[in-house]
Amino acid sequence: MIILLKHEATEAHAKEILKQISSLDLKPLYMPGIERTVLGAIGDERKIAQLHLENHPMIESITPILSPYKLVSRELYPEDTIVNIENIPFGGNNFTVIAGPCAIESEEQLRKTAKIVKEAGAHCLRGGAFKPRTSPYSFQGHGLNGLKILEKISQEFSIPSITEVIEVQDVKDVEKYASAFQIGARNMQNFRLLKAVGQSQKPVILKRGISATVKELLLAAEYIVSEGNPNVILCERGIRTYETATRNTLDLSAIPYIKEHCHLPVIVDPSHGTGIRSFVEPMSKAAVACGADGIMIEVHYNPKIALSDGQQTLFPEQFNELMINLKPFIKAAGKKYSGDQQQ
Amino acid sequence: MIILLKHEATEAHAKEILKQISSLDLKPLYMPGIERTVLGAIGDERKIAQLHLENHPMIESITPILSPYKLVSRELYPEDTIVNIENIPFGGNNFTVIAGPCAIESEEQLRKTAKIVKEAGAHCLRGGAFKPRTSPYSFQGHGLNGLKILEKISQEFSIPSITEVIEVQDVKDVEKYASAFQIGARNMQNFRLLKAVGQSQKPVILKRGISATVKELLLAAEYIVSEGNPNVILCERGIRTYETATRNTLDLSAIPYIKEHCHLPVIVDPSHGTGIRSFVEPMSKAAVACGADGIMIEVHYNPKIALSDGQQTLFPEQFNELMINLKPFIKAAGKKYSGDQQQ
Amino acid sequence: MIILLKHEATEAHAKEILKQISSLDLKPLYMPGIERTVLGAIGDERKIAQLHLENHPMIESITPILSPYKLVSRELYPEDTIVNIENIPFGGNNFTVIAGPCAIESEEQLRKTAKIVKEAGAHCLRGGAFKPRTSPYSFQGHGLNGLKILEKISQEFSIPSITEVIEVQDVKDVEKYASAFQIGARNMQNFRLLKAVGQSQKPVILKRGISATVKELLLAAEYIVSEGNPNVILCERGIRTYETATRNTLDLSAIPYIKEHCHLPVIVDPSHGTGIRSFVEPMSKAAVACGADGIMIEVHYNPKIALSDGQQTLFPEQFNELMINLKPFIKAAGKKYSGDQQQ
Amino acid sequence: MIILLKHEATEAHAKEILKQISSLDLKPLYMPGIERTVLGAIGDERKIAQLHLENHPMIESITPILSPYKLVSRELYPEDTIVNIENIPFGGNNFTVIAGPCAIESEEQLRKTAKIVKEAGAHCLRGGAFKPRTSPYSFQGHGLNGLKILEKISQEFSIPSITEVIEVQDVKDVEKYASAFQIGARNMQNFRLLKAVGQSQKPVILKRGISATVKELLLAAEYIVSEGNPNVILCERGIRTYETATRNTLDLSAIPYIKEHCHLPVIVDPSHGTGIRSFVEPMSKAAVACGADGIMIEVHYNPKIALSDGQQTLFPEQFNELMINLKPFIKAAGKKYSGDQQQ
Repeated sequence: MIILLKHEATEAHAKEILKQISSLDLKPLYMPGIERTVLGAIGDERKIAQLHLENHPMIESITPILSPYKLVSRELYPEDTIVNIENIPFGGNNFTVIAGPCAIESEEQLRKTAKIVKEAGAHCLRGGAFKPRTSPYSFQGHGLNGLKILEKISQEFSIPSITEVIEVQDVKDVEKYASAFQIGARNMQNFRLLKAVGQSQKPVILKRGISATVKELLLAAEYIVSEGNPNVILCERGIRTYETATRNTLDLSAIPYIKEHCHLPVIVDPSHGTGIRSFVEPMSKAAVACGADGIMIEVHYNPKIALSDGQQTLFPEQFNELMINLKPFIKAAGKKYSGDQQQ
Repeated sequence: MIILLKHEATEAHAKEILKQISSLDLKPLYMPGIERTVLGAIGDERKIAQLHLENHPMIESITPILSPYKLVSRELYPEDTIVNIENIPFGGNNFTVIAGPCAIESEEQLRKTAKIVKEAGAHCLRGGAFKPRTSPYSFQGHGLNGLKILEKISQEFSIPSITEVIEVQDVKDVEKYASAFQIGARNMQNFRLLKAVGQSQKPVILKRGISATVKELLLAAEYIVSEGNPNVILCERGIRTYETATRNTLDLSAIPYIKEHCHLPVIVDPSHGTGIRSFVEPMSKAAVACGADGIMIEVHYNPKIALSDGQQTLFPEQFNELMINLKPFIKAAGKKYSGDQQQ
Repeated sequence: MIILLKHEATEAHAKEILKQISSLDLKPLYMPGIERTVLGAIGDERKIAQLHLENHPMIESITPILSPYKLVSRELYPEDTIVNIENIPFGGNNFTVIAGPCAIESEEQLRKTAKIVKEAGAHCLRGGAFKPRTSPYSFQGHGLNGLKILEKISQEFSIPSITEVIEVQDVKDVEKYASAFQIGARNMQNFRLLKAVGQSQKPVILKRGISATVKELLLAAEYIVSEGNPNVILCERGIRTYETATRNTLDLSAIPYIKEHCHLPVIVDPSHGTGIRSFVEPMSKAAVACGADGIMIEVHYNPKIALSDGQQTLFPEQFNELMINLKPFIKAAGKKYSGDQQQ
Repeated sequence: MIILLKHEATEAHAKEILKQISSLDLKPLYMPGIERTVLGAIGDERKIAQLHLENHPMIESITPILSPYKLVSRELYPEDTIVNIENIPFGGNNFTVIAGPCAIESEEQLRKTAKIVKEAGAHCLRGGAFKPRTSPYSFQGHGLNGLKILEKISQEFSIPSITEVIEVQDVKDVEKYASAFQIGARNMQNFRLLKAVGQSQKPVILKRGISATVKELLLAAEYIVSEGNPNVILCERGIRTYETATRNTLDLSAIPYIKEHCHLPVIVDPSHGTGIRSFVEPMSKAAVACGADGIMIEVHYNPKIALSDGQQTLFPEQFNELMINLKPFIKAAGKKYSGDQQQ
């Protein structure tokens, strides 16, 4: 930890702070300069956090040396982690596709859509039972009933299911009926919820918050893993910027960043990331190309009547073409569709 | 609702959509142009939402005419709403000050701090029992025990208390021990939590999300009010931008915007809004000047040892000066401190 | 043009505005609603701009129907435009690579670097003679002398050259010595400069401003084309967001957006877009995959001693590998390297 | 300068870098840690910049100790600088108001507007002759002719004039006809232009770029001052964020930041900062309250017919009221209108 003192700080201030550092069995460093004095503390930075030096009026800035996350860090585990949702692997040389409607609207809607995505080659089925909506007057999902429909259809088509959990008290239900949890962008820093799914062993797809930094995403994953659940799949889904041509700005640079600093699999959601149906295919290809381990795509058997996010939802034939058109890119990336034999 | 068709849309597409509009007893409008066709639907826009026209592949964009919120809108209630936390009014010609530590660290810490802020003239006491923290390794608050300390000190100094609730299952406890709920920035779109506090009658201080638009803030307030709780106080606390000189960018223009479009009181949190102790006083003055109904300030009897947010927390003498230095600005704004007789 | 009146606007206000619209031989539309009145004007929207209706105190908002650019629009020219820099095509099924150092530091540095990039397969050579730098104390480039070095090396290796022009009075010199102009991000809205290069016939690589929307980028291109120079190549190079893990946030969704709305070629600069050497290859692959027509890459024969942007500059062997590793992605995208025979 | 090495860096890498630091007569520091090694260099950081250590593949990050600007820094000049435009002081306990139309449309328009703002108490007259416009089809200003009108009206009403210069070759003309230069937001990093006005002695109002950090604003001012012109007035005018409720997000926290780090006067432009007429008065009051030295306001004798920015332009009576309503806030801030005797 590097501590920059203010211009007006005296030697006495420096000594007081160095004494505090020494008291924690950390190695203190004193670097007086002409215009400013710099102090250092070598050792476990989480130890020094208890001093709350950031509060000191004579300290201008503090620069940590180590990353604040640990368990999800590639420095600790240099190998890629593979996370399985039921029998479907995410990570390694697998490219995995999750597809389905934004919301579970009815049993018939989910069955029709599941049939389409399964036949096109999707590996997992998505569908929301609890829908967080900006307006209180929008459709809020079918709740528990939706979960039951999801389980039924998932079994009917032998396809693992993924659904969002938005509240601690629903964790048990989602765990019972679905193959994996999804933590949505709005809940990436709902720390109670992170802890609750961290106490399960079911896989968690953790979506990046709409204004979260990648570092904050990795810290949110650390919450889950530090509770005991190592099965976390990260998901880039676009961030909020000044640009309004797309619904969000899909930050694909996050993929190589995460790959460099973290051992967990990471997928991309180009449906929410762009909000525009015709951009889903090109951005899916880009996701493959920059190293993502999979994609999550909104598909509906008839997007014209979808109850939410219809404008970014693919028509059946579009999803079918996407699955075919992705293949040469997956091969170019040295990967294969999850479950395929040949690379 | 104004509907712009794509360049390639035909008259048949237009007629199909107009027919759907008519079927809802809305008045359809047909405006064929040289390069594009525009359609309109006059009537209750929430009715038309069920058509999900945004999904239609021949529709380029949809522009709503009415604001999506209703109950919090000044069009509906032109008069300023005054919300009382116990006997303390927010809104109208009152300027109200909430002060206290970021987190409740101990009974002694809260007592010492409460004494300081009460004597300096603060109207309400803040203090967090449940602390949402970016890192799982940071102090997470004292929970229920913290709530009990807050109630005790609040009674001891006859000062209403405000504390954050971060989870539906804690709503009952917070309702029991505190004078008002605070919904933090990270939970502004935790819709279940909004509904839960909406079913109470205790006042709610609703903080703007770190990347929420003011319109989304008003929609979040609509969630609470539409559940039956009209006692909502909005709070601007800074948004996330590219600028790193301050912790957040305090968006004071939100104050006149909210005042123009909404009848609820609105306060400002310059402590989180800037993250820098020395900026709290100038930005508090600016908040008064642009029309805010109050401020929320972090104060600690000794910020050097604060367990969280110490760098933005005022020293006792700084808070005392702030309360004095604000007075001429409050007077210039045609207001008075909440509870003061003379204006 | 759709005009939404304020709540308090009367029928008389509406009639006054409709009369103004009629006076321009545009077709006026009157759509009184229950809560708001909407007006329309059908016809050439640029005509109506002279009314400056946006100033009217009874008008809440104005929504244009047509895009504000015209000559660069795909609605006008549905076919892809191919722009040639000397004999090198950009656009169509070509994928074109521009490479070279950030700044021209010396004749020897440029010669060594040109040899490397030419041998690896780059199609054009970049190098800055005029360097806009944030600090007045940083290296500002060799100016005219740099241009002369660029021309010499360009001829020596038979590789077209591209260099930035930052000032109207340098346009003649750059035109004389280089094969194409580059307009940098900071000058995307330097309208005098846009007009000046618009009066040349040499191709222009127009980089997106650091906080420009894609629509503003297209309008900047319209400035150049409307002056008479149709040879514009657009360049996405990252935008400024709250995320600090990368230097900028590379907005690859801009590629499908531009392809949908504009007929000009568009390339990507992953060096500035990420600011991190190890992210250049994955983001170059992503650029290919989402439809870009080329890339611009910073390479130096020895990045350790580069005078600017060294941390994002590729080592020779890295660039060589990039050129090889891109091939399967270019093939998957149905393209070929510019100049290659087989696809 | 603090240098953090990568995890994989060896002692040999550290020694190589330390040797380079020593070669510049800087004091090298070696701080080996358990997980990472930290190096330091004490002395003139601009000297060390020539090593371009940021390029080194074994260096993870470099943290400068000193601010990159010097001449504009309050560390160097602790006293407030007062800049005079003709006889009008900016800074100290003066609050100074610049007002006038966005663009000079005609002699009559400027005369009518100048009369209004002068009588209401404005100290300087603004008006654009060269207008940078996003669309090539918008009004671009009257150029040299506009400058002549500005000079004539400025003399007629004995009010100093301020106008934007957008191009090096116009600097001489603007210097001849106007009392002060304005550098607009789009040109804040047009470094040639900064140098050109830096070689004049006429005051410069330097507006913050739409996505510039305050540090970049101070570096832009350093460009001007380092060329020999100390008469710089900074201007906060709103930044681009995701929020679309206002045209820009007025970043008033920049005022206390600048006041703490820089000795130059700083004013606020709430017209561009909000883009909404009714927000100009509240945000002007907020600007006074947080310490600004003045404001720049768009006024037109009849905003309904203004050729640009009419929706944010005050009506004459609104400006008159603003000047009266600001007085108690200016007094509360311990200031007075520029030129007034009593405080």
